Amino acid sequence: MYSFAKAFVNPASSPIRDLFKYLSDPEMISFAGGYPDPALFDVTGLEKASTRAYANSLSCLQYGNTDGTPQIKTEIMRLMQKRSVVTQAENIVVTTGSQQAFDLLLRVLIDEGDLALVENPTYPTNIQALRVHGARLMALPCDAQGLDVIALEQLLNSGARPKLLYTVPTFGNPSGSCMSLARRLRLLELAAAHGFVLVEDDPYGDLRFSGESLPSLAALAPQVPGANDWVVHMASLSKIVAPGLRVAWSVAPAAIAHRCYVAKQSADVGSSPWTQSIAAEYLASDALHSHLDRIRDGYRQKCAALCQALSERLGHALHFEQPQGGMFVWARLSHGLAAAELLKHALERKVMFVPGTGFHVDSPDVTTLRLSFAAPSVVQIREGVDRLAQAWQAAQA
Amino acid sequence: MYSFAKAFVNPASSPIRDLFKYLSDPEMISFAGGYPDPALFDVTGLEKASTRAYANSLSCLQYGNTDGTPQIKTEIMRLMQKRSVVTQAENIVVTTGSQQAFDLLLRVLIDEGDLALVENPTYPTNIQALRVHGARLMALPCDAQGLDVIALEQLLNSGARPKLLYTVPTFGNPSGSCMSLARRLRLLELAAAHGFVLVEDDPYGDLRFSGESLPSLAALAPQVPGANDWVVHMASLSKIVAPGLRVAWSVAPAAIAHRCYVAKQSADVGSSPWTQSIAAEYLASDALHSHLDRIRDGYRQKCAALCQALSERLGHALHFEQPQGGMFVWARLSHGLAAAELLKHALERKVMFVPGTGFHVDSPDVTTLRLSFAAPSVVQIREGVDRLAQAWQAAQA
Repeated sequence: MYSFAKAFVNPASSPIRDLFKYLSDPEMISFAGGYPDPALFDVTGLEKASTRAYANSLSCLQYGNTDGTPQIKTEIMRLMQKRSVVTQAENIVVTTGSQQAFDLLLRVLIDEGDLALVENPTYPTNIQALRVHGARLMALPCDAQGLDVIALEQLLNSGARPKLLYTVPTFGNPSGSCMSLARRLRLLELAAAHGFVLVEDDPYGDLRFSGESLPSLAALAPQVPGANDWVVHMASLSKIVAPGLRVAWSVAPAAIAHRCYVAKQSADVGSSPWTQSIAAEYLASDALHSHLDRIRDGYRQKCAALCQALSERLGHALHFEQPQGGMFVWARLSHGLAAAELLKHALERKVMFVPGTGFHVDSPDVTTLRLSFAAPSVVQIREGVDRLAQAWQAAQA
Repeated sequence: MYSFAKAFVNPASSPIRDLFKYLSDPEMISFAGGYPDPALFDVTGLEKASTRAYANSLSCLQYGNTDGTPQIKTEIMRLMQKRSVVTQAENIVVTTGSQQAFDLLLRVLIDEGDLALVENPTYPTNIQALRVHGARLMALPCDAQGLDVIALEQLLNSGARPKLLYTVPTFGNPSGSCMSLARRLRLLELAAAHGFVLVEDDPYGDLRFSGESLPSLAALAPQVPGANDWVVHMASLSKIVAPGLRVAWSVAPAAIAHRCYVAKQSADVGSSPWTQSIAAEYLASDALHSHLDRIRDGYRQKCAALCQALSERLGHALHFEQPQGGMFVWARLSHGLAAAELLKHALERKVMFVPGTGFHVDSPDVTTLRLSFAAPSVVQIREGVDRLAQAWQAAQA
């Protein structure tokens, strides 16, 4: 009866968020979401920040600037500097989660049919975002060192003219892998040489709990001639402070940032200045530093617990690499068992994960799956893997 | 150097928001923004609501549902019922301001070249939104009784097939006018007969300070056979509680609401559950009822002050109708003086308003302007009109 826009005639919903209905079951152990552990929220620190923010109630209650309040921009510049990225207020657009940063960028860059490159596997909500904006998608192969830059170079040399390349180089979602320094530098060279926007999504960079730290693409860009013009860096407080703030940002060349600002005017006028004020007070208090130590400790333990349990109980059935940070373990089932089939048995046993199909743009590998260790406790992780092992048994029967 | 999407090669920024840079001047008296009066914020009531909300810190800090928290949806249903609109949770999508509600709707409805109808004059940020989404725009004539439904009927009978019609029937922005009951009913009949989505933007409906109340299109729709399927109603707490919450919503037929929900997944995952929790606590406390009396009183006085001062000081130079609610006076300069010319002299004298050009889709009337009485005090309003009168004198010289 209604005449919907092409992309919404049969809308493809997020395979992750569609599992959320099962979360209302209190017995469910979920490896599915990308939810941070609520036990690792700095409840008291944020309460104090909220009280300080409301001392200037006007800045919480009135409309704020479309591209972010001056206070949060100052704190973001300070935080980015700690991450070795020197930036100016005009380069920053504050957004409702980095999802919106990506969406705004697609608005200003993508016309119907434009080519966008993603990693294989990649984050499904961003596949959805790219499709909504009419992008033509190609997925690039990845391995434990991240994106295969040789395959990318071959593609570019064959004449492909992408508008952008979307990557999560540090603890990829879902891959959990970290792109090597050599590949980061090569990627920056290719972006500068071929003139495509390199979109670095970096929500997990501060969540490294083992191995040696690597600079972000944005931090490396000044070393590669011309690369600074092509990097758009997206970061967020969702995984390191609290998703409920919905405070994220992009750091972009001024011409791109200006257009994202204009796009945001008609997208939502502006993100909540109230939560931006809380976030600014929290960051100004330097509570984040010690809080990050606590989160990293927590995730280190959980990641170790998950990987150990998986090896012990399902080592014969699953292949995976242990990540050095982030929130995710990406795994592949042996013997061609489909993850969707395993999920069916898993849900019956009150445990869930996300089948990998949705993380692939084309030729989906049905044997893959994503497990997040972030939200469940260590005890729940062990119990969850026990249930998974039972589900695996049942799937064999 | 960059290859931007068509709509962003030369991005047209909002004529309203582009004036905001002058707000940093403490001596500026602004009739320009649609900012509510900060003196009319319920600072204490919202502080209490914030404290109550944070008692359940998890619901503030963790990700919330993409389409809104269950608590705010319950309160929205209760509020809508007071406004004689009976609705269900599945019909509601909570958004970051009603700007986002409109943007999501355009995503799911508009393909490049689709026809969208608007009022002349209409809200410029929504002209911008429609253009970003590639809509073909036509503006319908309006008078003191609102949209000219006979002109609309002629257009439809001539074969026009709009996807949607966007209207602010109650205290239009910028017109300040209120659509008559007869026209409301006819508009609903036409939407049902011709199958276009009737988008009712209703941020100001509760801000009636004189005259008799009229039901919204959404409240009337059940009386008009078939009309319920075609009305999308957008409402917001920005003008009646606080814009900083960024809590608004659309009420839509289930098939449309579902697609807006899917669109929101990739647009921003979800609006802040923290400010949604505060808003839900505030609405649950029933503080809004007495607060609304206070706002209406305040705006009644300010509107009267503005209209009286304009009549006294600029009656010979300006034509306008005194509104019965809302935040805006729409005026036309005599003798062909361009509002942009007047603004130039006004800015020099530290007073500003929005020239009407940007409120017109085509053949802009350069003599029109919008004055908001909401933000300045009565004293500032009188002083502002004095300055305007001086600016007018200067423009004559």
